[in-house]
Amino acid sequence: MTTAAQLAALVGGTVEGDGAVQVTGVAGLDQAQAGQLSFFGNQKYKKALAATKASVVLVAPGAPPRGEKTYVVVQNPHLAFARVAQTFSPAKQHAPGISVKATVHPSAKVDATATVMDFVSIGAGTVVGPRVVLFPGVYLGEQVSIGEGTVLSANVCVLDRCTIGARCLLHPNAVIGADGFGFALDMSVPEHVKIPQAGIVRVEDDVEIGACSCVDRATTGETVVGQGSKIDNLVQVGHNSTVGRLSILCAQVGLAGTTELGMGVVLAGQVGVAGHLRIGDMAKVGAQGGVISDVGDGAQVMGSPSMPSRPYMRSSALFQKLPELQQELRDLKKRLDALEKGKTSP
Amino acid sequence: MTTAAQLAALVGGTVEGDGAVQVTGVAGLDQAQAGQLSFFGNQKYKKALAATKASVVLVAPGAPPRGEKTYVVVQNPHLAFARVAQTFSPAKQHAPGISVKATVHPSAKVDATATVMDFVSIGAGTVVGPRVVLFPGVYLGEQVSIGEGTVLSANVCVLDRCTIGARCLLHPNAVIGADGFGFALDMSVPEHVKIPQAGIVRVEDDVEIGACSCVDRATTGETVVGQGSKIDNLVQVGHNSTVGRLSILCAQVGLAGTTELGMGVVLAGQVGVAGHLRIGDMAKVGAQGGVISDVGDGAQVMGSPSMPSRPYMRSSALFQKLPELQQELRDLKKRLDALEKGKTSP
Amino acid sequence: MTTAAQLAALVGGTVEGDGAVQVTGVAGLDQAQAGQLSFFGNQKYKKALAATKASVVLVAPGAPPRGEKTYVVVQNPHLAFARVAQTFSPAKQHAPGISVKATVHPSAKVDATATVMDFVSIGAGTVVGPRVVLFPGVYLGEQVSIGEGTVLSANVCVLDRCTIGARCLLHPNAVIGADGFGFALDMSVPEHVKIPQAGIVRVEDDVEIGACSCVDRATTGETVVGQGSKIDNLVQVGHNSTVGRLSILCAQVGLAGTTELGMGVVLAGQVGVAGHLRIGDMAKVGAQGGVISDVGDGAQVMGSPSMPSRPYMRSSALFQKLPELQQELRDLKKRLDALEKGKTSP
Repeated sequence: MTTAAQLAALVGGTVEGDGAVQVTGVAGLDQAQAGQLSFFGNQKYKKALAATKASVVLVAPGAPPRGEKTYVVVQNPHLAFARVAQTFSPAKQHAPGISVKATVHPSAKVDATATVMDFVSIGAGTVVGPRVVLFPGVYLGEQVSIGEGTVLSANVCVLDRCTIGARCLLHPNAVIGADGFGFALDMSVPEHVKIPQAGIVRVEDDVEIGACSCVDRATTGETVVGQGSKIDNLVQVGHNSTVGRLSILCAQVGLAGTTELGMGVVLAGQVGVAGHLRIGDMAKVGAQGGVISDVGDGAQVMGSPSMPSRPYMRSSALFQKLPELQQELRDLKKRLDALEKGKTSP
Repeated sequence: MTTAAQLAALVGGTVEGDGAVQVTGVAGLDQAQAGQLSFFGNQKYKKALAATKASVVLVAPGAPPRGEKTYVVVQNPHLAFARVAQTFSPAKQHAPGISVKATVHPSAKVDATATVMDFVSIGAGTVVGPRVVLFPGVYLGEQVSIGEGTVLSANVCVLDRCTIGARCLLHPNAVIGADGFGFALDMSVPEHVKIPQAGIVRVEDDVEIGACSCVDRATTGETVVGQGSKIDNLVQVGHNSTVGRLSILCAQVGLAGTTELGMGVVLAGQVGVAGHLRIGDMAKVGAQGGVISDVGDGAQVMGSPSMPSRPYMRSSALFQKLPELQQELRDLKKRLDALEKGKTSP
Repeated sequence: MTTAAQLAALVGGTVEGDGAVQVTGVAGLDQAQAGQLSFFGNQKYKKALAATKASVVLVAPGAPPRGEKTYVVVQNPHLAFARVAQTFSPAKQHAPGISVKATVHPSAKVDATATVMDFVSIGAGTVVGPRVVLFPGVYLGEQVSIGEGTVLSANVCVLDRCTIGARCLLHPNAVIGADGFGFALDMSVPEHVKIPQAGIVRVEDDVEIGACSCVDRATTGETVVGQGSKIDNLVQVGHNSTVGRLSILCAQVGLAGTTELGMGVVLAGQVGVAGHLRIGDMAKVGAQGGVISDVGDGAQVMGSPSMPSRPYMRSSALFQKLPELQQELRDLKKRLDALEKGKTSP
């Protein structure tokens, strides 16, 4: 059991109300029950704030007038909620050891503190670090490296020579190191001649990769997912791409080959990025955007092909008014016809 | 063997022609052979109707003039075809029992009539209902519940505490209950702090979920796929979303977090829906649409950002004519220049 | 070890410089080290060409002035690079035999030269050809056929009765033969009645299919992926579709049902194609395009809905200028107002 005051201290907030109230867990405003802590981080949820059964709510300074609950005032309620929620969700512990139903190549090195579950395959020369957890059905090829504390959920595949850093979390069915998509057309046969994909994928520390997401190996060299980046489900990262550190790729994003993302880039859902270009540090691309040229540091772009967000929104609003614009044009034409007629007629 | 008359009775139709003709199977108009039944449900296929080798064709009242075959006239030939086809495709039977190559935690409860194939993992406290079929490589975490008659195809993953209803069908590599994508940026480190995803996914009865589709668990509470909904391949359902009953999500659709779909919603292929909004009952979104605000009950929207379908089609047609509109504008300008010149010149 | 002259002979090129230089491997211009061969195929990389450490570079006739390296001049440097790279990447050899941890139905036929790794399931009546390699976790249903020399990577699923040709390569978690997405709505219940998917998938020879890609079985008849076609990751091929030979489907492409692609079609990333239409031979669709009507042989289309590429680019440029067009329209209106006022005033 923890008190509101203890949690306020944890997140550097100040208590308004009863700091001694006990907090038993966390939940969203709608789902929270008495005893739970929630947060108010979006003005859209004013009604939910008024109606919540939560006993404690994290709020920003200057949040709307509040009732008789206990509040913890912090600069960033969303971040504070994450910190508090983590205290109520300790990482699941797994007994170390290798299942007798797993297959580990004699030349592989699995740390004694790692957990290797049933039906896992670990190839020759592969290294599995301390406290790594490999869920059932995980496939590690040859000379793969998995860093300390990383968790690979069920059926994750990491192919030959790819490296995954420390404290990463890969969700079920993610595929790291499948061949990049590279062919050269030989019209004389005709056939698409495969360009061997001899490079690797390097996933740095603290990365999360979603279910059924794919990061392809480089043709030569490396495809890189930078430290602290978070990739959602069903994302495609093409060969030789680089995702800078602390970037966010939402679900169903696709990066073509040799795409370079800077640091802290945010790509919203279903964004596509063409190959051989760069998206600058801290740049943001709106959902379903299609990026076909470089994007500068800090830029915010939208649309397909993408353009700066503000003019995009103006153009997009006018797209909806095209029938009106056409009508206005026709009206002008008629008036002009009349004027010209009046002028030429005696 | 079944006669046309028997099948007409099954679907509430009336026979035109020889009701005694034997039907041995079903097929599309193009593929059907003598002895087979087909259906005519789309005017686009008039030629195929004329050319089909099918012995019996399901048609709607008032269908085009027909030849010398046997016809069964029904209100909804497509639906009638589904019913007839099912009589020719009885569900595959699987011998009950647990493979010696599967792993079932001692505290899990697997019904004696269930089929558990090789390399299946069933975690602690998980309940597998009567006549459930788990294909090779299925992973069920802890305290999962799988309802009566549900079939999980190869390599499907259902993670801790998620529940799947009765008579569901999940296709290979579907992932139910991976973590929702929730992080809060702490600029002081900097790092993306993970918001623990402590909720579950609840899939109701009679749901179908496609290959490589992902339904993420809720942050707190539930992500819900409602009774009778059908989800195609490679679909992303974000955390805390609700898919109302009898909805249809075509391939590669993506729902962000906390998205609420009403009943009977239809999302065509590659649609994206932003978070924290509602799509009303029976609403339809056209392929590749991007929904960024609420959609009313029964509304039909298209485009990205989406707008009502009719004006969208007008605007979309005018988009293609923008060069002409620009030319007309230039022409008007010239004429106006001339007029003004004429006016000011003596 | 191989000399530049030997490699030039292999690709039908001519040496400029020292043909005796030894080549130890291949790499991109940026990554190449001394002793390696690279290629220059895109004017965008002139600087990289100047800076590369490669000892030998494949170039086209008339490439920019070059330094003191050895060059091999060929018509198609990209294709030549593919051929050379293959000589440095011999196919990995796998010891033939069936793992004792795999499950093979007694009625299945596995060629003695095939490799069947751990945790593979092979169903009744399935035929696995010579030199086939099945990685861990592969699932083959009943009466499946896998042609000579084909490689199925980890966790690939091929469902009942589907056939895969010779020399194919399927990447991890690809799913061949899941049910097509077909339902008929019965409002009287209401329920979505499943249309049994009784057809198959036929993948012809020399096809590559990416990680987490899905090719659905036909309702009746076949879904076909034609000889020599290459499909990237996370692609959806709907039921009864036909992909003509030598076609290229980039990542996250989606084909609805009964879509027909001709020969040599190229669909860029995230393209969607509606059902019941045809894309002609050698046609190209730009990234994120949405095809809703037939596309002629050799046509190049872009946009959603797609239109010919040239007018699309003009319209797209004008979309970005819509605010300007609106302003021009307003200006004309004011001038017209003034003219009319002048005219009607005495």
